[in-house]
Amino acid sequence: MTAVNEAATELTDDEIFAAHEGGKLGIGVTAPLDNARALSIAYTPGVARVSRAIAEDAGLAAKYTWAHRLVAVVSDGTAVLGLGDIGASASLPVMEGKAALFKTFGGLDSIPLVLNTTDVDEIVETLVRLRPSFGAVNLEDVAAPRCFELEARLIEALDCPVMHDDQHGTAVVVLAALRGATTVLNRKIADLRVVISGAGAAGIACAKILLAAGAGDVTIVDSRGIVHAGRDGLNPVKAGMAELTNSAGLRGGIAEALRGADVFVGVSSSKVPEELIATMAPNAIVFALSNPDPEVHPEVAARHAAIVATGRSDFPNQINNVLAFPGIFRGALDAGARRITEGMKLAAADAIAAVAGDDLAADRIVPSALDPRVGPEVAAAVAKAALRDGVA
Amino acid sequence: MTAVNEAATELTDDEIFAAHEGGKLGIGVTAPLDNARALSIAYTPGVARVSRAIAEDAGLAAKYTWAHRLVAVVSDGTAVLGLGDIGASASLPVMEGKAALFKTFGGLDSIPLVLNTTDVDEIVETLVRLRPSFGAVNLEDVAAPRCFELEARLIEALDCPVMHDDQHGTAVVVLAALRGATTVLNRKIADLRVVISGAGAAGIACAKILLAAGAGDVTIVDSRGIVHAGRDGLNPVKAGMAELTNSAGLRGGIAEALRGADVFVGVSSSKVPEELIATMAPNAIVFALSNPDPEVHPEVAARHAAIVATGRSDFPNQINNVLAFPGIFRGALDAGARRITEGMKLAAADAIAAVAGDDLAADRIVPSALDPRVGPEVAAAVAKAALRDGVA
Repeated sequence: MTAVNEAATELTDDEIFAAHEGGKLGIGVTAPLDNARALSIAYTPGVARVSRAIAEDAGLAAKYTWAHRLVAVVSDGTAVLGLGDIGASASLPVMEGKAALFKTFGGLDSIPLVLNTTDVDEIVETLVRLRPSFGAVNLEDVAAPRCFELEARLIEALDCPVMHDDQHGTAVVVLAALRGATTVLNRKIADLRVVISGAGAAGIACAKILLAAGAGDVTIVDSRGIVHAGRDGLNPVKAGMAELTNSAGLRGGIAEALRGADVFVGVSSSKVPEELIATMAPNAIVFALSNPDPEVHPEVAARHAAIVATGRSDFPNQINNVLAFPGIFRGALDAGARRITEGMKLAAADAIAAVAGDDLAADRIVPSALDPRVGPEVAAAVAKAALRDGVA
Repeated sequence: MTAVNEAATELTDDEIFAAHEGGKLGIGVTAPLDNARALSIAYTPGVARVSRAIAEDAGLAAKYTWAHRLVAVVSDGTAVLGLGDIGASASLPVMEGKAALFKTFGGLDSIPLVLNTTDVDEIVETLVRLRPSFGAVNLEDVAAPRCFELEARLIEALDCPVMHDDQHGTAVVVLAALRGATTVLNRKIADLRVVISGAGAAGIACAKILLAAGAGDVTIVDSRGIVHAGRDGLNPVKAGMAELTNSAGLRGGIAEALRGADVFVGVSSSKVPEELIATMAPNAIVFALSNPDPEVHPEVAARHAAIVATGRSDFPNQINNVLAFPGIFRGALDAGARRITEGMKLAAADAIAAVAGDDLAADRIVPSALDPRVGPEVAAAVAKAALRDGVA
C-alpha cells in the first residue's frame, strides 16, 4: 500500500493561507439587479407582494425564500478537528470549508453560524429564535458528551432536519465502507466482531449505526478501557451503550478487545501497536480514521489485515464524511423532511456502498470523495427513505 | 412632471413571484474544490493550520475568514415596508432583497437573519452570541420606538458597525437630496424652515441628521400633530426631539406646521392635501417619500413647489436608501471601523450629493439608484470619516 500520487507534494503554509485570504465563501444573487425594473421586482415595491403572500400563507416561505434550501452550519468551536476547544472564531474556517463542500457536492447553500457560547440551553434558544432564517442545521465540532444532548434538544425544538455530522456523517460512511469491505471479503456484517476505539461523537454513532445495520457483536473501548455495564463512572451515553454492546461481556483494554476481532474502527487519537493488530482474526478489517495520524499506519496494518481504510486522502479507502452529509441534507431538504431518521442514514450508507459497488476492490471499498455520482445518489435514497419513514 | 419610462409597464404578480422562486440568494465558493489538493487545502487537513493560527492570534480571523466583510441583515419583521408587523418569515424576501442590493451596489456579502422574537434583550443576546459569525449588523424593518432602543443597545454590545437602515439610510439620502435641492435653488440649509411628517424611525433620524447638518428650524409632526415640549404622552424619543426642534414653538397640526415652510419631508403614510402644500413658502421643496403612495402626488406638489422628490423609481428624484447603505457599510468595513459615527453618515450624504453635483438640476437632485459611481464614492468618504473620527 503506497501513498496516492495527487497529495504526494506536501501542502505548504503559504498556499494554505493564501487560499484562505478573505475567507472561502461569497453571496451570489440569483438574478442581476442591473436595471430599474429588476430592482423594483427584487426590492420595493415588488417584494411587498411576496412578503404579503407569505404573511397570509406561511407555507409559501418554502417556495419564495432561500430558507428552505439553506443549511445553518453551527458550531461552538469546542471540538474542532483534532485541535480541541479553540473557540468559535477559530472554528470559522472549518465551517466555511463545510459550506464549500455542501455547495460543491450537494448543490446546497449554507451559512456558518459560530457561537460564543457553549451552553446547550443558549445554543438551542439561539437557533429557535433564528428558525425562520434556515431550513436545516448541520451541527459541527461540538465536544462530546454535550453534543449528544445538544443534538437531541435541537431535534426536539426545531421542525427541520438537524444532524451532528461528526456523529452521523462519520457513522454513515463507516457503515458504507464496512458494506464494501464485507462484500469484497464475502462476509456478513452480522457475523463480525467489531471493536470501536473511541466513545466520543463518532464512536457512539458508529456503534449505533452498526447495531442498526445488524452487527451482532460491537465492543466500544475508550481511554479507560472496554465500556461495560459494570464499569464505574460511565456518563449516561456510555452507560446506555454498555447495555447494547459488548455482548461477550469482555473486560480489560484495547488488547483484550482486539484479540480475535474481525473489525477495528479507530475514531480516537489513541495509537494501536502493530502487535495488537496482529492478534485480530484472519481477514481482518482495519479502519484507522484519526486524522492526520491514523491509530495505526495503514502500511503497518496491511501486514495483518485484509482491508485497511483511513481518513486520509493520500491513502486508498478514504473514509470521508463528504461522501455522506451533502447528499443527506440535500435529500432531506428536497423531500421537505421534518427530521433525519435512522432509516435515512441507513439509506445513505447503502447508496454510498452501491456507488462503490460498481468498481469494488480491497482498495476501493468506498467511492472517491470527489466522485460526482455520490451526492445525487445519496440525496435520492435519503429523500425516498424520508417518505417511507413518514417524516416528509 | 411625468412618469419615467422604464417602469411605465406595471409589474405583474406573475413576474414578481417567478423572480422569487427558490429565493434570491445563493452561496458561492471562492475557489473550486474540484481536486483532492483543493479539498485538502479548504478542508482537512489544510484548514487546521488556519484555525490554529486564529486560535493563537484572534486578529487573524479578519484576514482568513469571510466574517469581517459579512453584514448580518437582521429583522424581527415588525415594520416591513408599508405592511407593518407581518413576522420574521414574511420579512425574509425583503432581507434577501437587501442582501442582493448590498452585493450589487457595495460588493458586500451579507446574510439575512430573521428573528422569531421581538424582545430587545433577546435580539441583543442572540447577536452577541453570534458575534464571531459576522462583521456588521444592518438592522431592518424593526418598529419604532423599539428600534431606537435596539439600535442603541446593539451599538453598545457589539464592537462592530451597527446601523438601522430605516433610520439612517433614509436620513442620509434625505440630507443628500436637500443639499442637491438647495444648490439648485441657491439657498442654504441653515436658512430653511423644515417640516417632517412622521416621528417613526425615518422621521426621527431625518430630524437628527438635518440638525447635525446645520438646519436651524426643524418641526416634527406625527399623527397627533406638532411635536412640542408641552405635549402630553410623548415617548422618550419624541420628548428628546421636542427639546431640539420646533424652535418657533408652533402648536397645532400639519396645517399650522406647513404654513410658510420651505421644506416638507414626508416619511409617514399620512396624506397631505394640495391646499396645504399651497401654503408653503415660495420655491418650496417637497419630499413625499411614502411608498408606494406618496403623501402628495408629485404632479400635484409640483404645482406649488420648486423641487419635488419621492421614494418611487417611476418619478424623477427618487430618494432611495440604496444610495447610502451599501457604501456606508462597505466604507465602515473597509476601514475596520468599530462603529458608525454621525461624521460617517454626514460624509456619506456629502458623497452622494457630490456625485449628483456633476449633473445637478431640479429633477436630478440625487443620483440614480443604479448609478455605479455612488457606492464606491460613499465607501471612500465613509472610510475616511471613520479614520478622522478615530473609530477605525
